[in-house]
Amino acid sequence: MPSSLHPDRLLPVDAPARAVARRLYEAVRDLPILSPHGHVDPRLLVDDRPFNDPASLLISADHYVTRLLHACGVPLDELGVGQGPLPEQQARRAWRAMCAHWSAFRGTPVRYWMEAELVEIFGVTERPAAATADRIYDGIAARLADPAYRPRALFRRFGIEVLATTDDPADDLAAHRALAADPEWTARVVPTFRPDRYLEPGAGWAAAVARLGEAADIDTSDYDGYIRALEDRRRHFIAHGATSADHSHPDVGTEPLTHGEAARIHQAALQGTASEAEGVAFRRHMLLEMARMSCDDGLVMTLHPSVRRNHHAPTHHRYGPDTGHDIPLRAEFTDALRPLLHRYGTAEGFHLILFTLDETVFTREIAPLAGFYPSVYAGAPWWFLDAPDAIRRFRRAVTETAGFSRTSGFVDDTRAFCSIPARHDMSRRLDCGYLAELVTEHRLDEDEAMETAVDLVTTNPRRAFKL
Amino acid sequence: MPSSLHPDRLLPVDAPARAVARRLYEAVRDLPILSPHGHVDPRLLVDDRPFNDPASLLISADHYVTRLLHACGVPLDELGVGQGPLPEQQARRAWRAMCAHWSAFRGTPVRYWMEAELVEIFGVTERPAAATADRIYDGIAARLADPAYRPRALFRRFGIEVLATTDDPADDLAAHRALAADPEWTARVVPTFRPDRYLEPGAGWAAAVARLGEAADIDTSDYDGYIRALEDRRRHFIAHGATSADHSHPDVGTEPLTHGEAARIHQAALQGTASEAEGVAFRRHMLLEMARMSCDDGLVMTLHPSVRRNHHAPTHHRYGPDTGHDIPLRAEFTDALRPLLHRYGTAEGFHLILFTLDETVFTREIAPLAGFYPSVYAGAPWWFLDAPDAIRRFRRAVTETAGFSRTSGFVDDTRAFCSIPARHDMSRRLDCGYLAELVTEHRLDEDEAMETAVDLVTTNPRRAFKL
Amino acid sequence: MPSSLHPDRLLPVDAPARAVARRLYEAVRDLPILSPHGHVDPRLLVDDRPFNDPASLLISADHYVTRLLHACGVPLDELGVGQGPLPEQQARRAWRAMCAHWSAFRGTPVRYWMEAELVEIFGVTERPAAATADRIYDGIAARLADPAYRPRALFRRFGIEVLATTDDPADDLAAHRALAADPEWTARVVPTFRPDRYLEPGAGWAAAVARLGEAADIDTSDYDGYIRALEDRRRHFIAHGATSADHSHPDVGTEPLTHGEAARIHQAALQGTASEAEGVAFRRHMLLEMARMSCDDGLVMTLHPSVRRNHHAPTHHRYGPDTGHDIPLRAEFTDALRPLLHRYGTAEGFHLILFTLDETVFTREIAPLAGFYPSVYAGAPWWFLDAPDAIRRFRRAVTETAGFSRTSGFVDDTRAFCSIPARHDMSRRLDCGYLAELVTEHRLDEDEAMETAVDLVTTNPRRAFKL
Repeated sequence: MPSSLHPDRLLPVDAPARAVARRLYEAVRDLPILSPHGHVDPRLLVDDRPFNDPASLLISADHYVTRLLHACGVPLDELGVGQGPLPEQQARRAWRAMCAHWSAFRGTPVRYWMEAELVEIFGVTERPAAATADRIYDGIAARLADPAYRPRALFRRFGIEVLATTDDPADDLAAHRALAADPEWTARVVPTFRPDRYLEPGAGWAAAVARLGEAADIDTSDYDGYIRALEDRRRHFIAHGATSADHSHPDVGTEPLTHGEAARIHQAALQGTASEAEGVAFRRHMLLEMARMSCDDGLVMTLHPSVRRNHHAPTHHRYGPDTGHDIPLRAEFTDALRPLLHRYGTAEGFHLILFTLDETVFTREIAPLAGFYPSVYAGAPWWFLDAPDAIRRFRRAVTETAGFSRTSGFVDDTRAFCSIPARHDMSRRLDCGYLAELVTEHRLDEDEAMETAVDLVTTNPRRAFKL
Repeated sequence: MPSSLHPDRLLPVDAPARAVARRLYEAVRDLPILSPHGHVDPRLLVDDRPFNDPASLLISADHYVTRLLHACGVPLDELGVGQGPLPEQQARRAWRAMCAHWSAFRGTPVRYWMEAELVEIFGVTERPAAATADRIYDGIAARLADPAYRPRALFRRFGIEVLATTDDPADDLAAHRALAADPEWTARVVPTFRPDRYLEPGAGWAAAVARLGEAADIDTSDYDGYIRALEDRRRHFIAHGATSADHSHPDVGTEPLTHGEAARIHQAALQGTASEAEGVAFRRHMLLEMARMSCDDGLVMTLHPSVRRNHHAPTHHRYGPDTGHDIPLRAEFTDALRPLLHRYGTAEGFHLILFTLDETVFTREIAPLAGFYPSVYAGAPWWFLDAPDAIRRFRRAVTETAGFSRTSGFVDDTRAFCSIPARHDMSRRLDCGYLAELVTEHRLDEDEAMETAVDLVTTNPRRAFKL
Repeated sequence: MPSSLHPDRLLPVDAPARAVARRLYEAVRDLPILSPHGHVDPRLLVDDRPFNDPASLLISADHYVTRLLHACGVPLDELGVGQGPLPEQQARRAWRAMCAHWSAFRGTPVRYWMEAELVEIFGVTERPAAATADRIYDGIAARLADPAYRPRALFRRFGIEVLATTDDPADDLAAHRALAADPEWTARVVPTFRPDRYLEPGAGWAAAVARLGEAADIDTSDYDGYIRALEDRRRHFIAHGATSADHSHPDVGTEPLTHGEAARIHQAALQGTASEAEGVAFRRHMLLEMARMSCDDGLVMTLHPSVRRNHHAPTHHRYGPDTGHDIPLRAEFTDALRPLLHRYGTAEGFHLILFTLDETVFTREIAPLAGFYPSVYAGAPWWFLDAPDAIRRFRRAVTETAGFSRTSGFVDDTRAFCSIPARHDMSRRLDCGYLAELVTEHRLDEDEAMETAVDLVTTNPRRAFKL
């Protein structure tokens, strides 16, 4: 029984809305992909080597896939997690595990994306299952040897116009420089400044701050040098095309410290004597500082707080971070961001994009904030919420208060390179479906819906992320 | 391209449900409007002067409109916020700004209401846009000069039977008295007792308490006098037709203080020496006192807590309150109201209507409370939630636990006079749509749905608000 | 006007989805009922006496019914709450009150279930109303005298294969033993270990701990004996067929204490000198201990926290617990369960099923946890959330992150014996409707949906609850 990708998938089921949605989708289906936030490694495109095997490409490094298999009792070892490119036997074993548990993905976006990848990219015509696993594996493996399946060729085939990576402030950005210098490479691959670890005193912080100082060639052993080093690295990123800085902390508190207090905690934290509360206070102060720098240097500020990282310590110790057990927490933006927005909420050119994994803040906090402050944009639903029903809930929650223009446009936020087209296509279908429902309920005229559908994949991400 | 108001707008899209919804809506469409909570100034109706201009009527005083324009970069100055009736040039400039940003309102209820107002009240046939702004302005301005567009004429045309205003306890209610004494005025315009500022010690509290004392002609410099003055002003309001008292605090805590402790904090607060914690304790005690008074004098108690008022201090300082940046907070009712409901939850004749901007409490707290306590009603979704999808979520969240009879009926809560009919019509369409879905899913018979649809715009608000 | 039970009730309204849903439902409609969590008294089946009267069977003991009537102003006395089998006159009065307020149940699942019970079990053909109350009462009363309406006959007619009861750890389980020993009784009626009161120091705790010791014949006056007694009673339950232990505390905190600290608080609590904070710490420690025991003895652990029990103290004092005013609170699982999951989250054979009344945790916490930990299952929506729209929200919230296989299957959680078939049927219809929507949106093939629909009422509850 072949898998199928119906042309009307995800569009509204009732006939009048589906007809409108088809027309809207037709207008956006083939527009280039703008990916202003994600986790693809730029060296993939610099090196342009063939992908090693189907499992390390499609399974092992994608915690969206491995986490549910783990819940079904498949050990992460068997899936090749944390092992890089896999030897053939191991890759095949991981692939078989995924196929054997294909039914576990029913109703999840992983199934939806993976199906699209298998069919549209790799020409697979069978449904994954224990019995078909090896045939599908062999088919994909054969294609990976074909130059048309190298990273750059796929990148072009996917129609990606801009791809943002996520990078450490101490990174020299050599990969981005190499791409920019390569006359054969014309797409934009831009870095994103992700300074979390440099802003959170605690284990490893002194080493990180020293590394930052080396990268900037500035002495970071005092607070002023530390601040100047951060400013310097942001300039370095901007010089390499960065348009945004990305921040993910346990909360988005932004209480200022006096200069003296900040300097004092900086010292204490370097010496390992700062209390946990001082560390938190310093981090909140620094998030405010990041906003100040964004007002100065123009980097868009994106926030996605309130996740308990590495929830299962034993798995973290064995496999490292990003292995599928970051678990969301309640989020709060209204009071936490008040000091920041008091200062910079109406600052010319300042952009602050708010993402959440706690859906309750969409109507309660994010939409009201984005519906008043010129700086605030409602970020697309991401991670656990990057899925059909969640995306529909997002539009229904945010639009009535903040409209469409105050939303960021879609971000794929992915390290699964081959899933990028399917994710953007999913988002386009769902937005067209939502707009079609507004039209059939006579809340919007179709020409307006058409304009909005196109804006959401062009104007909105360009404006919000300053692409 | 003319705007249009389709007769089936907001009704369910699928044919069988739409057919039922049409029949239900037909039965309620033209019923009189009961508006038991809102912010129209009663002097508007006493004076009955022509409205000054389109912008100050439809834009400047309505923070639902100005907030989103502000988010789009239009300064509040340009919109005439806080400036009262506008000179022609300035009014036209505000109007043009709104029309030029018309697309920002796509998918919001402001667009939906405004379109209805433009078409149905003012006969506008063009879609707002930069190119049409002046023609639309001129058309409306011309009509405003017509006696048929004076406040009283519009009030009658809107079919309003009862309109509740929101008033300061020290208000002499002269406007209400004037209307009641006017033989040509037959509709009910009733005041609502809104004592928030008199219950929250802090800046300006001593002056407010003194003002209260003057209004009541009672010495409020001791706690007992203060209590008696509040009771006196409530009687004054009741004598002028009030049926409810409205309360909006940061939370709905209702912990009692001893008489001695309350008196002590009252003194300290008058002298400006009460701590913030004492102020909060006093306010929570006083909310409980308000419930006690409601049990005595019969005023319905409405609560709508958990908003951070005036979130952007610079805007507040420049333009005052109600300028579009009150941002919701998480709400909690279960434990906060327990002391109050312990005492008065089953008291004969006591009515407590719970409103929220935090949708999470609809299923979790409000519906369970309204589904047990005879005094508790689930208030209609208001403010940011007074919108099609949010209203649908409300019914789906509350009905399964509390049914229909425990809900308050619609409140428009608006200071935008011309939006009243569109808002009530929107609510009627949505409730009919929800009921029609219950019928087509065979969860309700159509005769029951019909009775319920009528109840929701007649019996429910009359009962909950004691109209 | 007769009530009606349309064959397509609750299925999707639009034609293509309804057609798919009908086929799915056809496949599961008549499958046996597995009821792994509920509150039916097992002595009902041991004694097999005729039910006394319609009101005590269908109204008085079911707080889903009485709570909304109480909200409508009917005193609980009039409904026979807490009075056991009612004399005819009183039963008739309670019945009349329910019929007279039938409209209050519109849109609630009580109406939906009750209608099914009246029509399908008792052959009632009239809609409840003041005018029909006595005729309906007489019809049901007549049938209750018929042997076909005795508990065992109904149990068989309902097609129940497994029924779990909820039992006190000190219960000798004589009723379960009697059923197991009865050669004429072939269905499984298994106990559930519900130790809440033995884990929460406070009023009555010392007596409870002593009772536990007597039941286990172990001295519980020291901590080690107390632990051994709990282990012993769990073995007793397992020997009588129990497969799960059920826990409901104000929160699911699971912070460990040292043995010495636990023993110290145990002593203090027995002597009544433990502080409230110590009591909470002890309870959280003991929940962790329960998980440890579950790893040892295999009892599935079910959690349903965050309800303020007996919210209205006066009603509690007069009528006792479970009288309709348990009101939900905000829930938090991510951090609260971290210590437990750190230790036992990947333990072989450990099952932890998470239920909630706070829907916000479905996407934010429960689905992410169930989508990673092999031990964690997302429990079905229960209590206030056991209703059509809430069940739909549950599937839409959980499936995209955790799929279907990580959900528990339906639990009816009811003490209303006659509502069991209607509740399970409702759940089957809704799950088939959700699956049909996935099929018509081309997110799932119909053969997969069919397999899943069957799994959800067979494999899923058997696996999650180890039936």
